[in-house]
Amino acid sequence: MTRILGVDPGLTRCGVGVIELGKSRKTSLVFVGVIESLKTAELDSRIGSIGSELEALITKYKPDVVAIERVFSQQNLSSVMGTAQIAGVAIYLSHKHNIPIAMHTPTEVKAAVTGSGRAGKAQVGQMVANLLGLDDVPKPADAADALAIAICQAFRGSNSSTSYTKAQQKWHSAVKSARGKSIR
Amino acid sequence: MTRILGVDPGLTRCGVGVIELGKSRKTSLVFVGVIESLKTAELDSRIGSIGSELEALITKYKPDVVAIERVFSQQNLSSVMGTAQIAGVAIYLSHKHNIPIAMHTPTEVKAAVTGSGRAGKAQVGQMVANLLGLDDVPKPADAADALAIAICQAFRGSNSSTSYTKAQQKWHSAVKSARGKSIR
Repeated sequence: MTRILGVDPGLTRCGVGVIELGKSRKTSLVFVGVIESLKTAELDSRIGSIGSELEALITKYKPDVVAIERVFSQQNLSSVMGTAQIAGVAIYLSHKHNIPIAMHTPTEVKAAVTGSGRAGKAQVGQMVANLLGLDDVPKPADAADALAIAICQAFRGSNSSTSYTKAQQKWHSAVKSARGKSIR
Repeated sequence: MTRILGVDPGLTRCGVGVIELGKSRKTSLVFVGVIESLKTAELDSRIGSIGSELEALITKYKPDVVAIERVFSQQNLSSVMGTAQIAGVAIYLSHKHNIPIAMHTPTEVKAAVTGSGRAGKAQVGQMVANLLGLDDVPKPADAADALAIAICQAFRGSNSSTSYTKAQQKWHSAVKSARGKSIR
């Protein structure tokens, strides 16, 4: 059993999700949430409070690995800066607690979860719910994204083969039959 | 007496400088150095070790304020990311130790130290040495930059007037006579 903390870093909303990876790539939900900070608060208290919450989660759930979304450049610059600052804090705290980190790009996360690197938010959210056996897609999107990052780590980190889970195969079949073409 | 820790954030070289601000805007050197990390090391151990060193400095020198250079976009993107990650860690650690932070842009730092926002590296280094009464400009540039950031905070944070110190006035006179024009 491997416990994974997924982090979708952000200064306004930082998605966090803890999953467990069991046999046969079975994943299950342990915790999901969003750490928020007020845009009107000072930068140090925003980063400080998100860092404290992240550390509390690490201490409470004792993950075997922390998976973090790799910051990307397409967003606007000030958002990228805040994201990189929070990612830096998450990496620092993981290292402090002797927990290995892994970073995955948004494309890698989408591909690992849905089979397509170009999948939309809704598809990723639905696959996250399917894979974890949840009735509903976790809300807000940052929470579902954090779980997707953790699932990506579960699949890529533990098994480098590209074989699909039953849920993924079902998803692929559904998409193929709906669109009449492969989404790969 | 105010003690200021200046941080020039960087993943490969993070400049750090501690100064004290006394009466009549007199600044004096307490500590200067550079925290380095190997480019070949893993990201988590790089960020983790720089963070540990930063925390050790905060614990040892107990600054009243931590001044950090504001990340800028002109550099290449991967360098900006590392800089933002380290800045995030510095902000997190300052907040954790209940020390207020201040952020200054490179232009603000140059203007506060030399009187010109367009001053070159050599000018900034020379003024840092003059203001702190040092025989030589601190090396490498990241170390001098960290002291410049601390000096900027000393001048801007404690006194919002734009009056110059004697060393700054001397520098201005020297530059004016050498170039035959104002550098403002």
